[in-house]
Amino acid sequence: MGLAGSVSGMTPTDRSRAEELDAADPLAPLQQRFVVDDSELIYLDGNSLGRLPVATKARLAAVVEQEWGSGLIRSWEQWIDLPTRCGDLIAAHLVGAEPGEVVVSDSTSVNLYKLAVAALDARPGRTVIVADDDNFPTDRYVVAGLAAQRGLELRMVGSDPVYGPDLESLAAAIDERTALVTLSHVGYRSAALADMAAITALAHEAGALVLWDLCHSVGSVPVQLGATGADLAVGCTYKYLNAGPGAPAFLYVRRDLQTSLRQPIWGWFGQRDQFSMGPDYDPQPDIRRFTVGTPDIVGIAAVEEGVAVLAEAGIERLRTKGRQLTDYLIELADHWLAPLGFELASPRDSARRGSHVALRHDDAWRICQAYIDASKVIPDFRAPDRLRLGPAPLTSSYVQVWEALDRLRGLVEAGTHREYGDGRARVT
Amino acid sequence: MGLAGSVSGMTPTDRSRAEELDAADPLAPLQQRFVVDDSELIYLDGNSLGRLPVATKARLAAVVEQEWGSGLIRSWEQWIDLPTRCGDLIAAHLVGAEPGEVVVSDSTSVNLYKLAVAALDARPGRTVIVADDDNFPTDRYVVAGLAAQRGLELRMVGSDPVYGPDLESLAAAIDERTALVTLSHVGYRSAALADMAAITALAHEAGALVLWDLCHSVGSVPVQLGATGADLAVGCTYKYLNAGPGAPAFLYVRRDLQTSLRQPIWGWFGQRDQFSMGPDYDPQPDIRRFTVGTPDIVGIAAVEEGVAVLAEAGIERLRTKGRQLTDYLIELADHWLAPLGFELASPRDSARRGSHVALRHDDAWRICQAYIDASKVIPDFRAPDRLRLGPAPLTSSYVQVWEALDRLRGLVEAGTHREYGDGRARVT
Repeated sequence: MGLAGSVSGMTPTDRSRAEELDAADPLAPLQQRFVVDDSELIYLDGNSLGRLPVATKARLAAVVEQEWGSGLIRSWEQWIDLPTRCGDLIAAHLVGAEPGEVVVSDSTSVNLYKLAVAALDARPGRTVIVADDDNFPTDRYVVAGLAAQRGLELRMVGSDPVYGPDLESLAAAIDERTALVTLSHVGYRSAALADMAAITALAHEAGALVLWDLCHSVGSVPVQLGATGADLAVGCTYKYLNAGPGAPAFLYVRRDLQTSLRQPIWGWFGQRDQFSMGPDYDPQPDIRRFTVGTPDIVGIAAVEEGVAVLAEAGIERLRTKGRQLTDYLIELADHWLAPLGFELASPRDSARRGSHVALRHDDAWRICQAYIDASKVIPDFRAPDRLRLGPAPLTSSYVQVWEALDRLRGLVEAGTHREYGDGRARVT
Repeated sequence: MGLAGSVSGMTPTDRSRAEELDAADPLAPLQQRFVVDDSELIYLDGNSLGRLPVATKARLAAVVEQEWGSGLIRSWEQWIDLPTRCGDLIAAHLVGAEPGEVVVSDSTSVNLYKLAVAALDARPGRTVIVADDDNFPTDRYVVAGLAAQRGLELRMVGSDPVYGPDLESLAAAIDERTALVTLSHVGYRSAALADMAAITALAHEAGALVLWDLCHSVGSVPVQLGATGADLAVGCTYKYLNAGPGAPAFLYVRRDLQTSLRQPIWGWFGQRDQFSMGPDYDPQPDIRRFTVGTPDIVGIAAVEEGVAVLAEAGIERLRTKGRQLTDYLIELADHWLAPLGFELASPRDSARRGSHVALRHDDAWRICQAYIDASKVIPDFRAPDRLRLGPAPLTSSYVQVWEALDRLRGLVEAGTHREYGDGRARVT
């Protein structure tokens, strides 16, 4: 991305270089749209739980106090369309889909299940699910459960720990017995960015359906579900979409597939003419058939606010900044951290990488604990030995990246992490 | 309940009688724990969407602003146990269960699906699901979907529209081929209260499992899951638990069944040693195996606040007041509304009734619209011809019931409802 050449007369590790990059950053003013009450703290875990948008505070207070507290049941007039309205926003601004192809509903895991079952039922007689062995646990577990229940073969493609599953391995695994291919667009550990168009084409050539997990790409990497011909997708809203802990997920079903797919959990929100409460299930003729129970209104309102800020930034600008931020991070890591035993565990080429960077280190767990406790930097740990640094394009600055890497270098040079235990605690 | 005799020297329809009942109501002071910004409005739909507790406003602001906004990912230390901690509260105060038998997770519909599948898998070779034809739509649809998918017989027991399914019909329907019996504890339209102990015993004699839907009883009627030997249950939190629109539901699995049941949606929150992110799914050895994805923290915090107020009131006192309120409502309806074409469509004996009352009327839909618009009373409409009046014991007064019935009488006497259309709109 030409970072080194952008500022002349300095060494690459000068703090002033970060300052100049921030001064030239068109997205920098949007950082003020987020709650930051501790300017010392550097948050590099926006890819696990995004920051709180300032607007979300007022919006949630209004939903709770006015819409629920005062409006009571009458507010369903405006709530009833919220899952599809918010889905349309995600479709238009973040995932390259048409109105009516995305809806906000349930958790990512439940959505994975619903769409995987729908895909398997749409390919009767096919007996294989293709997945990759480095995918996020819930993705692997959901399809493992289905394979066990239905007596299907779960064909796990071996992934390169840095680059993810390669096209050749996938091509070899996908055949005329394959019903479903399920993969992450961006790897949760490595940030490896999959070639959605090529993999979707591979699956389609074999007559299989593809289900994409967008959790680690949506909001930071442009997703082109329509242009790539993707069949199905799910995604999370509490990472780059900044919708808060456990906010509801979304799902995508390509329009021409919608009426032919059978969603397995027949709930009353998937029912056509829902309030006639008739005797037989007659699913909605559109994306709403993939919803189930009463939607989480407070959560979806938070999704809408989170997406609004991303839409204002624009996904292309977010992507450009995400590449530059992580390029810069890697450049500093090369200078400062490689001599201390860190190895890059993400693709070096930003075109093949999402918006986070994994660094491998033998002492990663202890470093992670010390980093939070002694350095006031919040990274993420991923088993067994990765420090995951996610400077979210919308909420992170170049100076924060500089500062975070400088503190990390200082910490490991001083050996501070050796004072921390090597047990494993809970880190999401 | 001896209401008529409680106040002497008045006719049963005197407003002063309602005032005396309120003055003697030990739960009356708790009405101040709820947001009421329009004292003219009478809300009789707490059994659809409960009112906002005052404490919930501050709690949600704290979860959003301090825990999420400031604490960020670090708050998972306190969030991770919230689903089971809140489940334990529900277990102890509302449903007669032990710690570790209830967890808050997903929607009611998704929970119904998970537990129904688990039950069917636990009774291999059995080919029948017994349900009742007047159960809430989502309950019927979920088991219809499973029956269709698995080629099972869905045996729908005919329900009396007022009293629900009778024991004789159920006894005739449940046999050695029955895997699962699924019923509501309180009927969503009629408020018929099922005999949980007797029906559970019937199912167990035949070797079947029972899955109870507690949506319309929990928080207003004592539920004795442990004492009745119930196997499985689900329930809603946005009605009598006052947790807000679309707040997450809960589920119950009797402890001795937990490790033998297979939950079908294998998500990462059901995994033992979740953050090691290992290759194989190894479910939690407890109630957590029935959870799936990342929990809705904001929603569960609201559940905790809602349950806290119910716990303070005490479920026995809530039940006593619920019986008296609805007895009083029926008494007024007998005097004022029966002459206007209304018929009671709920059990007359409060021992067989939950905390709402259904009134049948040929013009119910138009009356419902006029009642909201012209009378400032919010009831609920249930197809095809029921006005459902739910004075929640925690948030409703006797005077409100008097006032609501007086306004209804005035409305129908004046024929105001004839100005309203007879189309069907959305009412949840």
